[in-house]
Amino acid sequence: MGYGQSVSDKTSAVPTMKADGYYALHTAGARAVIEATRPMLLKAASHVPIALSRPLVIADYGAADGQNSGDAFRATIGCLRWRSQNVTVQVVYSDQPENDYSALFRWLHDEPPTGGGLPRSLLADLDEVYVTAVGDTFYRQVLPAESVTIGFSATAMHWLSRTPRAIPGHIHAVSAGGSVLQEFRDQARADWDTLLRHRARELVPGGFLIVANLCVDGHGRYVGNTGKANVLDTLNNVWRSLYRDGLLSDQECAAATFPQYFRTMAEIQTPFSERSSALRGQLTLVSSSTNIVRCPYAAAFQRHRNAALLADGLVPAVRSWSEGVFMIALKTKQPAERATIVDELYRRYRNLVIAKPKNHRLDYVHAYLLLRREETDGSCAT
Amino acid sequence: MGYGQSVSDKTSAVPTMKADGYYALHTAGARAVIEATRPMLLKAASHVPIALSRPLVIADYGAADGQNSGDAFRATIGCLRWRSQNVTVQVVYSDQPENDYSALFRWLHDEPPTGGGLPRSLLADLDEVYVTAVGDTFYRQVLPAESVTIGFSATAMHWLSRTPRAIPGHIHAVSAGGSVLQEFRDQARADWDTLLRHRARELVPGGFLIVANLCVDGHGRYVGNTGKANVLDTLNNVWRSLYRDGLLSDQECAAATFPQYFRTMAEIQTPFSERSSALRGQLTLVSSSTNIVRCPYAAAFQRHRNAALLADGLVPAVRSWSEGVFMIALKTKQPAERATIVDELYRRYRNLVIAKPKNHRLDYVHAYLLLRREETDGSCAT
Repeated sequence: MGYGQSVSDKTSAVPTMKADGYYALHTAGARAVIEATRPMLLKAASHVPIALSRPLVIADYGAADGQNSGDAFRATIGCLRWRSQNVTVQVVYSDQPENDYSALFRWLHDEPPTGGGLPRSLLADLDEVYVTAVGDTFYRQVLPAESVTIGFSATAMHWLSRTPRAIPGHIHAVSAGGSVLQEFRDQARADWDTLLRHRARELVPGGFLIVANLCVDGHGRYVGNTGKANVLDTLNNVWRSLYRDGLLSDQECAAATFPQYFRTMAEIQTPFSERSSALRGQLTLVSSSTNIVRCPYAAAFQRHRNAALLADGLVPAVRSWSEGVFMIALKTKQPAERATIVDELYRRYRNLVIAKPKNHRLDYVHAYLLLRREETDGSCAT
Repeated sequence: MGYGQSVSDKTSAVPTMKADGYYALHTAGARAVIEATRPMLLKAASHVPIALSRPLVIADYGAADGQNSGDAFRATIGCLRWRSQNVTVQVVYSDQPENDYSALFRWLHDEPPTGGGLPRSLLADLDEVYVTAVGDTFYRQVLPAESVTIGFSATAMHWLSRTPRAIPGHIHAVSAGGSVLQEFRDQARADWDTLLRHRARELVPGGFLIVANLCVDGHGRYVGNTGKANVLDTLNNVWRSLYRDGLLSDQECAAATFPQYFRTMAEIQTPFSERSSALRGQLTLVSSSTNIVRCPYAAAFQRHRNAALLADGLVPAVRSWSEGVFMIALKTKQPAERATIVDELYRRYRNLVIAKPKNHRLDYVHAYLLLRREETDGSCAT
């Protein structure tokens, strides 16, 4: 559902996440990342100003189908209501226009699943929680000024607002160098400023923003590059094997470039430390740290030793966030042919996993950030 | 896009409108109905309380892809800003979970269309207007209490929350009698109470609700029944011709029942006049009238006399709101077969139009209602 549109999406360089619940079902690791933000969410919920005259707003930027953050948001609402039991909460799920909003709303309002599968709806057993969705890029201000009590974004803000350029011989900036790398760095810096400026404007004074960003940590590790095989190198090699086999044109091969950049902690902190930053007096970095969420499929493989089972978890997880980039690269092909080629890409990836299962894992490397919008009077109650 | 899901939708008896902009493109009549509400929208915008401390909220209940109300909402926002130029506006588009929200968000955020086609985006040249969507049935409270400044609903609240029962020999309650009709009447009465109670709670004190409801007018006219051929009778006859030709099972033929009821003005006014009504002191009926929006396709036919051109406008317009009911009736069939049968239904309808073009027209018969939430102190400034 929706690939045709996502390929021709004019509003953003960022591809749409795979639709219809697929994203959340195959993102156990991404959910674990959100669970790791829970202490920050609860800290925010414990300290935000509560005015009963209007609902408290929790905004999820880059929410996909919303299911991964459901449990953490329930805990956050629980904490807010421990402070003030009658508080009305509005949760805003924001993502791109082509996101699968029907999957989100079905999950919220359908009967609870009986056979497991989807996580419990955010709304189950909760009164006075209202949900809306925003279908716009988070590179714009998407909500009124001073309307958001707690902002949240997980594994989303590494997507750049545009692809600076193609990367010779590779699909991702992690393998770029020299002036190519510098172009991605510059774009990432400008984008991070833009994202923070809009979020600062949306937050109420005293409100918090919790961000878990894919990053390069102090040891040079990043998502999929913590062990033997590097996920992005593997994807790149398989993509180029399709090219060598005549399945891709020169142009298509080169067009697969992730509009992504994994910032270092220094790059993340820059807007908060520079004297000239537009954020000074607006948004404070309360805490920051990096952490690795270990690959749940590789961990399970340690027990079951079944390479096919490992591939069944790992490859769809990689596919959930990578497929869109290849779909866009193939946009001039007919949908059926496009699908065949992309299926073949992940079939080959799967074969590599099955051949050497011990080499493959998808660890997530994130920077965890707690940010706070300054109170109007300049005081800081935390 | 989305039919598979709409057929299995558990949250509501109401089928989803046809997706991906089709709805607005083939609903020139429905757009004319919304244009007819413009004086009420402007009256509301002239009288609602304006507090600059929070955004003014305009909520569209049953918005589909939002495009039909775009121009009228732009005028409404213009009026609000004539009163207070810095006012921030939030527009909330509400519809069922399976609605095509991506079509709505694409329309809002894409580049303006160059070749005509879609109406101008609500957001074009407007600053400080923010848009969110709600994917839930309007038979629930979908927004926080006292948060909506102007509520709006056009050609939506004739959809009942459930289908009371099958109607012997027909697809629609307009042809029901006796105890069958009474069941639909009772359901429509309960549903109208529910709808109004939720909207009253969502409105700010002094806020307005504008409703254009398909109705039966004082002359017994209703949508598609103002001239020679009756649209719902025609649909019913064609559906039963498919049954006679062996394309439908007994069960499928009987399952096509519109969960709809066109209320009379007396039925619409009842909750406001009864002493015991829960709405008393909450919601006031400021004005009510009925009006017919003449079929734009039949009007054009008067000029061009081209029966095929008439059918090209009329049949897709009928299809936009009727198709979902037949899709649901065929839910046990495979999607391809379901589509084939429904295509055949509208092909036969088209043939009838071409055979006797002067007999076919789709006039809309609406009750236009302006409602107002009482001020807390009981005063009425209008």
